[in-house]
Amino acid sequence: MRKLLIIGIGSGNPEHMTIQAINALNRADALFIPTKGEKKTELAEVRREICARYVTRADSRTVEFAVPVRRTEGVSYDGSVDDWHARIAEIYERLIGSELGEDGTGAFLVWGDPMLYDSTIRIVERVKARGKIVFDYDVLPGITSLQALCASHRIPLNLVGKPVEITTGRRLAESFPARSQTSVVMLDGEQAFRRIEDPDAEIYWGAYLGTPDEIVISGRLADVKDKILATRAQARARMGWIMDIYLLRKGADFEE
Amino acid sequence: MRKLLIIGIGSGNPEHMTIQAINALNRADALFIPTKGEKKTELAEVRREICARYVTRADSRTVEFAVPVRRTEGVSYDGSVDDWHARIAEIYERLIGSELGEDGTGAFLVWGDPMLYDSTIRIVERVKARGKIVFDYDVLPGITSLQALCASHRIPLNLVGKPVEITTGRRLAESFPARSQTSVVMLDGEQAFRRIEDPDAEIYWGAYLGTPDEIVISGRLADVKDKILATRAQARARMGWIMDIYLLRKGADFEE
Repeated sequence: MRKLLIIGIGSGNPEHMTIQAINALNRADALFIPTKGEKKTELAEVRREICARYVTRADSRTVEFAVPVRRTEGVSYDGSVDDWHARIAEIYERLIGSELGEDGTGAFLVWGDPMLYDSTIRIVERVKARGKIVFDYDVLPGITSLQALCASHRIPLNLVGKPVEITTGRRLAESFPARSQTSVVMLDGEQAFRRIEDPDAEIYWGAYLGTPDEIVISGRLADVKDKILATRAQARARMGWIMDIYLLRKGADFEE
Repeated sequence: MRKLLIIGIGSGNPEHMTIQAINALNRADALFIPTKGEKKTELAEVRREICARYVTRADSRTVEFAVPVRRTEGVSYDGSVDDWHARIAEIYERLIGSELGEDGTGAFLVWGDPMLYDSTIRIVERVKARGKIVFDYDVLPGITSLQALCASHRIPLNLVGKPVEITTGRRLAESFPARSQTSVVMLDGEQAFRRIEDPDAEIYWGAYLGTPDEIVISGRLADVKDKILATRAQARARMGWIMDIYLLRKGADFEE
């Protein structure tokens, strides 16, 4: 039977690779690599370095494929993502069917961990549900930007015995600070932290985490908000892209 | 200056080790290993295997230390943890002062990731705050049981564009299912999922994740609740200990 490996490759530092992920890379006959649409050339460079450093089998093939652009006009967010996944599933189906022999193994390299705000697992499940190709798959975890953020700031994610929410920029206002003492925002095109006015809130922000371009800023939100906004805008203009994440906190350990 | 490395070593599979963590292990002159109180001999065995497999420098020393038992009688939970951390901080201070030369490097090996429901970072911060020993420290991320859970069940943590809560058994009822469609419970001595009566809730449960003893069960909570409770009780009796984690979910992608 054909086999897929969905491999988490960490958040930008090639040394985030686990031994398990390296071994999985070397079980794959074909490495499926998205190309078009990926303008983030520094990230593409990290992925090339990962393959160059860790792929030791000589007969491993790299198969590049173009990822379609998500259509956003005239549809809801959910409808837009649903349609996009359906079109990617057709591409995956073709790759699995045409690039792998009947007992072949293919690998998808996923930034961070395939479980966290990534859709490779659910798109592969769509391909399975279509039923045209029989295959099995495994998921290999990887270090996420959330972990890189906490490591660089040297902070625990949670207060002692307290919950944590991981959310998006669109939904931040629902949770922090009213409902959650710790909120992590992973997808935020609009810098939702701007609109949080709590004088006791602290922020731990990071961009390009794990890469040589990493920037981290932390402090009382009211004090560092403008600095983060300016730093982010400058970095984005200079690099041509940005990936950032932040943690908001209110309160301290051993406070009720 | 003395240096500490707080290294995430993954959740039970020695192959969870990242290249970064392996390199950090080999920068340490001394590896600080908790001994007493650790009855989970299988986990101790995994840690020994990690050191045997990945520590390549010949002059690396292992320094075992006893972890005090947390006093729980007559104090609040927070007070109990606070006192316990204070006592561990004294031990860390002694280790750093007596086992490391003035430019020496020591490492703490932490299960999972030091950021997630682990107190090594905050105890090390206590030692710094006491000011008796000058040192710096780095944190290295590691694969958590949460990631191992999702990988074994081959599920995304979040629904598309939706938030996730990570919480404790004591606090689960506050969040799921009223407030959160995805709740992950990491510390739960009382199997709080028992008291969730929602007919649409699904559970993804795992114990001893990453180890050869790994057990996973998933399904509609109402259907598999009793099976999980029985399996957990049997496994705990057989092994003498258990570490488990679960994810509760209500709803599906692309539903509003």
